[in-house]
Amino acid sequence: MKTTFKLRVRTYECDGYNHVNNAVYLQYLEAARHEFLKEIGIDYKGLISKGYGTYTARIEIDYKKSAFADDELTIESRPIKKGAVSGVIEQIITRADDIIASAKVTWVFVDKTGTPVKIPPEFDVEGMYP
Amino acid sequence: MKTTFKLRVRTYECDGYNHVNNAVYLQYLEAARHEFLKEIGIDYKGLISKGYGTYTARIEIDYKKSAFADDELTIESRPIKKGAVSGVIEQIITRADDIIASAKVTWVFVDKTGTPVKIPPEFDVEGMYP
Amino acid sequence: MKTTFKLRVRTYECDGYNHVNNAVYLQYLEAARHEFLKEIGIDYKGLISKGYGTYTARIEIDYKKSAFADDELTIESRPIKKGAVSGVIEQIITRADDIIASAKVTWVFVDKTGTPVKIPPEFDVEGMYP
Amino acid sequence: MKTTFKLRVRTYECDGYNHVNNAVYLQYLEAARHEFLKEIGIDYKGLISKGYGTYTARIEIDYKKSAFADDELTIESRPIKKGAVSGVIEQIITRADDIIASAKVTWVFVDKTGTPVKIPPEFDVEGMYP
Repeated sequence: MKTTFKLRVRTYECDGYNHVNNAVYLQYLEAARHEFLKEIGIDYKGLISKGYGTYTARIEIDYKKSAFADDELTIESRPIKKGAVSGVIEQIITRADDIIASAKVTWVFVDKTGTPVKIPPEFDVEGMYP
Repeated sequence: MKTTFKLRVRTYECDGYNHVNNAVYLQYLEAARHEFLKEIGIDYKGLISKGYGTYTARIEIDYKKSAFADDELTIESRPIKKGAVSGVIEQIITRADDIIASAKVTWVFVDKTGTPVKIPPEFDVEGMYP
Repeated sequence: MKTTFKLRVRTYECDGYNHVNNAVYLQYLEAARHEFLKEIGIDYKGLISKGYGTYTARIEIDYKKSAFADDELTIESRPIKKGAVSGVIEQIITRADDIIASAKVTWVFVDKTGTPVKIPPEFDVEGMYP
Repeated sequence: MKTTFKLRVRTYECDGYNHVNNAVYLQYLEAARHEFLKEIGIDYKGLISKGYGTYTARIEIDYKKSAFADDELTIESRPIKKGAVSGVIEQIITRADDIIASAKVTWVFVDKTGTPVKIPPEFDVEGMYP
């Protein structure tokens, strides 16, 4: 299972170096994970309304090349690890054949107090498994 | 009544022209209004918990000069108009003696459905009047 | 002449009210004007390389309705005023038949010192006229 | 050598969960590193004018606790590794006694083509060493 998200770099996402600011990539990754959750069939609003949530516990990101205004970027997201209460999603940002950045995002399933809890069967969907 | 808010421009707030991006000034204005509400004694959490809110209905902003990373900016906020359900706050952004931008922000008092409503006496504080 | 720009609201563009933060609309407007300039045939890099630039002098924006994560928004941009050194672009943000916000953006043509100058014929394109 | 940078969380930095969005922490870290470079005496403008630059090659960040609007945060930055062309800076974000997030940022010294190069003695300052 792999989700593909496409975007075009906007001018205001570039900083004084005229390239995409490094914090903006984390925004791109969030947008791509949002799409990923939808595609694997996670009902995120349902999850919230039942008192659950997900928490981003760790992000590792390697910046390989710069991206610039108007660049067309593709982000592929896929699960690479899955435990009882957490998992890891790998996300690769490319521009045509170039890797711009690659990241590993660790998420934790939590209850409304923010305490990690075992994922209930209804939200433990196949698409979260590598 | 006039509230003064100070900030230093951060590098990531500058765009490809190396100056503060025009959208960022609206973030600065929001931060300054947040301070303004606190200083005039509006209990914003209380207001929300009673089912009220405020809605920014209109912003007019004139950009006079550019600001750059590390610039020390000052934002003065003061009410210039006050009606039964709305008002206007003027906000001036300066760097030393230079005016960087000036804005007029129209706010509306609303209930939880977003409908404009008369401001209840407990939130109709003196500091909102010109 | 009218340019249409489409976007989908991303989660990180929403603030604590769960709606698009008012500063984010100015980012959307910038992205739409960038598209507008391309569509009317302004060679912006050429303009910069010849020592010219454009400066956003004033923005008036009316916020009509809130927008939320995943909303599909359309921004139409069209010139409504054109002078020798400046002009005004109107931009309307809609979600289906609802107007979310409408804005008027005044731009000024400047040389590299930031001084307003008469637009040279090669950059005085028809698409900038109402 | 350790640099301390303080900031107060602004409302627009919070997302729909009412906590600081995870991308915003990278903006905070950038602001704190900017301060760090100044405090250790790196003349960044001089470095740029001589055709050099620095490139953020990797960021690892662990999110420990959420931060909220008006929280007073402190970011401590200190070098933990130093090579001929690169180094690692550790940055810890705290709110009073709580660790909010901790990060390791790998930077690379580059020439104007973006190629890693040995740091010239004038920019190889003591403060970059652990």
